[in-house]
Amino acid sequence: MAMLQDSLRLTLEGARVALEGAERRAREMGVPMDIAIVDDGGHLLAFARQDGAKLGSVAIAINKAHSAAIRRQPTGPVMEAGAPNLVLSLGLAIGSRAAQTPIRGGLPLVFAEQVVGAIGVSSGTEEQDTAVALAGAEAFGAACRAEPAEQRGFEAIEEDE
Amino acid sequence: MAMLQDSLRLTLEGARVALEGAERRAREMGVPMDIAIVDDGGHLLAFARQDGAKLGSVAIAINKAHSAAIRRQPTGPVMEAGAPNLVLSLGLAIGSRAAQTPIRGGLPLVFAEQVVGAIGVSSGTEEQDTAVALAGAEAFGAACRAEPAEQRGFEAIEEDE
Amino acid sequence: MAMLQDSLRLTLEGARVALEGAERRAREMGVPMDIAIVDDGGHLLAFARQDGAKLGSVAIAINKAHSAAIRRQPTGPVMEAGAPNLVLSLGLAIGSRAAQTPIRGGLPLVFAEQVVGAIGVSSGTEEQDTAVALAGAEAFGAACRAEPAEQRGFEAIEEDE
Amino acid sequence: MAMLQDSLRLTLEGARVALEGAERRAREMGVPMDIAIVDDGGHLLAFARQDGAKLGSVAIAINKAHSAAIRRQPTGPVMEAGAPNLVLSLGLAIGSRAAQTPIRGGLPLVFAEQVVGAIGVSSGTEEQDTAVALAGAEAFGAACRAEPAEQRGFEAIEEDE
Repeated sequence: MAMLQDSLRLTLEGARVALEGAERRAREMGVPMDIAIVDDGGHLLAFARQDGAKLGSVAIAINKAHSAAIRRQPTGPVMEAGAPNLVLSLGLAIGSRAAQTPIRGGLPLVFAEQVVGAIGVSSGTEEQDTAVALAGAEAFGAACRAEPAEQRGFEAIEEDE
Repeated sequence: MAMLQDSLRLTLEGARVALEGAERRAREMGVPMDIAIVDDGGHLLAFARQDGAKLGSVAIAINKAHSAAIRRQPTGPVMEAGAPNLVLSLGLAIGSRAAQTPIRGGLPLVFAEQVVGAIGVSSGTEEQDTAVALAGAEAFGAACRAEPAEQRGFEAIEEDE
Repeated sequence: MAMLQDSLRLTLEGARVALEGAERRAREMGVPMDIAIVDDGGHLLAFARQDGAKLGSVAIAINKAHSAAIRRQPTGPVMEAGAPNLVLSLGLAIGSRAAQTPIRGGLPLVFAEQVVGAIGVSSGTEEQDTAVALAGAEAFGAACRAEPAEQRGFEAIEEDE
Repeated sequence: MAMLQDSLRLTLEGARVALEGAERRAREMGVPMDIAIVDDGGHLLAFARQDGAKLGSVAIAINKAHSAAIRRQPTGPVMEAGAPNLVLSLGLAIGSRAAQTPIRGGLPLVFAEQVVGAIGVSSGTEEQDTAVALAGAEAFGAACRAEPAEQRGFEAIEEDE
């Protein structure tokens, strides 16, 4: 037990690596997307609406990212015995006042088994949204693994300033 | 008939007995939980988010407790012939502006057949949430029964002051 | 620059140290209070409504804590040249959809120059609320300084389980 | 009269030019900012929260941009005889359900006398927010003027098809 625990905080630079990975995948697919990156408290860090992406998906992309962050799991319906539980899925969406969405396309950003943020994608089908979110999460994970750990330390930050 | 009736009011101390009973059960299960205790008007008295419990379940735990208190019954879907009635369950959630949730995990706190408050638990499955809420309600009931009645009396209060 | 930065996360145990420090001060003052503790993302960790505290202050205490956390500063009116700027103070409250309150009684919880959470207190005057919040923040700071740093490490956490 | 008029639409690339201009100015000032760019309908196109900027300013930056876009003018209090009119300033904020903010830091993005979008900045003082928004708007204007018109033209589009 302890009053404080060591933790990792997602930076704007880290958020942009995830954002760019997702944008690239959306361009390859030819489906313009709304893409949001939030920190582990669900607060927006970076956002891009690609030309042609739906206006109505801006809030949904942010909501998916927020939802995946504060629930520490991908967005989507609650499944029971292989089928979506409608009461639970929609009940959670209503009960959380839309802080949880039962629509797929939100994924946690994970490093060293810690959820440090999330990506939310909207404007295509659920499959397209999820594929683009996955590309963002994978680009983020690959870049994190390539980054020397000492770059994250408080000393390193102090030296920079 | 009478203009006023004797009643029992849940205290912070009583709320904490329920909270601790629920926390203990969650630790035994290894599932960190968001746990809320409200009074008989549905107003928050005590809350704890155990380390690792979902951020997105904070509002849901409070909502479950609130819902169980103001409806004087456990939360959950409206059942008809053994199956949840979707329109009724979700319609009540929407129509009450989320003051009633169709998700299980909210239970009234009862003493001497009077609902004096409620407990709401969220972050696990509905079964886990309900088991933890039940442990809180049982710890509360056991402690109430063990308490000499004169400690609650109006005379006792006057003597104290 | 880095994708992730080292950070500190407030635990339930740490939140309760702040809560108890505030409760103690409120009892000494004879003014029952609503007291909320949130993490650095503004999410509720612990809450207590002392017997006799106002029901209408539950949401305000939580709002003050949330506001102090997400703005990294005490709550209160925006001051200019020694006087409150009304347009700015109320404009921020409205524009943030009440995520910032211009009422005093919310204070950040700080360790090693990092805001790790916040405390919000309501039910008395602004001066009383602030005094109780300060007692909570001071109790938290004192306990943090007394805690060996190695208790916070990831290894220590793993060893506990 | 005509049923349709030629118009200019802000792209993600254009939004990012404004965003980068604002980010650069904030770094020079040493004040991390929340920066939002919206199109002429007030819909979010691009957003960045610089490391250390307030979480509580995310919604305010977006609100300022939205407000400047849909009102085609800088955000700020309604002035009368050199002083802010409180009732009007706050009344508009409330009456518009926070779609108009009386806080400065939102500016239209203009080209060829057409408002094509807006920038909103928050996390510093009103003066700092406005200076950073201005840098973004100026970077946008300079890049627009430097861009050959035929890149935007309807002729160019028609030639492509």
